[in-house]
Amino acid sequence: MELLEQRIREDGHVVGTDILKVDNFLNHQLDTYLFEEMGKEFARLFKNKKVDKILTIEASGIAIASVVARSFNYCPVVFAKKTESLNLSSEIYSSEVYSFTKQKSYKIMVSKKFINENDNILIIDDFLANGKAAKGLIDLIYQAGATLAGIGIAVEKGFQDGGKMLRDKGIQLESLAIVEKMNEKDNTIVFRPRSMNE
Amino acid sequence: MELLEQRIREDGHVVGTDILKVDNFLNHQLDTYLFEEMGKEFARLFKNKKVDKILTIEASGIAIASVVARSFNYCPVVFAKKTESLNLSSEIYSSEVYSFTKQKSYKIMVSKKFINENDNILIIDDFLANGKAAKGLIDLIYQAGATLAGIGIAVEKGFQDGGKMLRDKGIQLESLAIVEKMNEKDNTIVFRPRSMNE
Repeated sequence: MELLEQRIREDGHVVGTDILKVDNFLNHQLDTYLFEEMGKEFARLFKNKKVDKILTIEASGIAIASVVARSFNYCPVVFAKKTESLNLSSEIYSSEVYSFTKQKSYKIMVSKKFINENDNILIIDDFLANGKAAKGLIDLIYQAGATLAGIGIAVEKGFQDGGKMLRDKGIQLESLAIVEKMNEKDNTIVFRPRSMNE
Repeated sequence: MELLEQRIREDGHVVGTDILKVDNFLNHQLDTYLFEEMGKEFARLFKNKKVDKILTIEASGIAIASVVARSFNYCPVVFAKKTESLNLSSEIYSSEVYSFTKQKSYKIMVSKKFINENDNILIIDDFLANGKAAKGLIDLIYQAGATLAGIGIAVEKGFQDGGKMLRDKGIQLESLAIVEKMNEKDNTIVFRPRSMNE
């Protein structure tokens, strides 16, 4: 998606070999106008699929998913939680996810009330790298007997293996920007040509 | 706000003396159409104020704030984080918040890049009870030398003291539904008459 790639070029900062900081529009400060445009693009890319629920994960996925829902007829958005709370009922599906940025494993949880076998679920998240979070969310969907419609990602790190792993399973994965290479020294970011994914 | 009160009456569950579960539309499963309507109402209530940034807090505040931004000309949304991350720069404002639902204190953090003395900030959150989270967010705003335009809350627990504490400081606090009394036995929820706040 040209608008997103352009924004990453302007505002993204490469840190080390692995981290692409996009915290001024995607995951700390949020540009919700951009998210609406992303929603329109996801709706176009997934127009072949039935989508009646969106599943995402705390915390930055929530912002994108909540705005994107507008382009899917305001379907319900459910977010998987990472922390126990008095507010979370005991009837949950749960899975384990390892986070490289936080350098630890954590549990993700979703109430059994909110995903079930009638749901056609689109997973939305801000980043895809090794695919651990996506795998955890897919696990929750399968536990519930729901249908995975596809996965919509803002920024995929194409040099990590999550995207290949998911596409090899036959899952419709649509990433609006795929970073092929990035270099901290001169802050260059090279995107995978979009025609290769359309 | 009639639409929100009606929804709470239909879908809210009183648990014990303190907890109002609204997890099927407000803070686990999300009704983003309702959030858009709430955004229009906040825009009406704060039309006397200059608002050029929205500040909220992980996790459930993010959903509402991201959708509400649409009614404030898609102004940037910034969310305070609760956990350290490699993605969070070392230049932060921080404050301490005690959570009764999670029964512990936690640190909230926001990058110094994203709030500054030129900002007119509207705080948006899902719940107001004792006002600890709001106080923490106000502290971040004052540390940055920014201006607090007001506070917009979805559900205020009027039987706790956060609302009074904030209004007594002269802060424009607008809660779209104020629960005056609630009773677990028959799940009755009594709202403060709206005319008293308009």
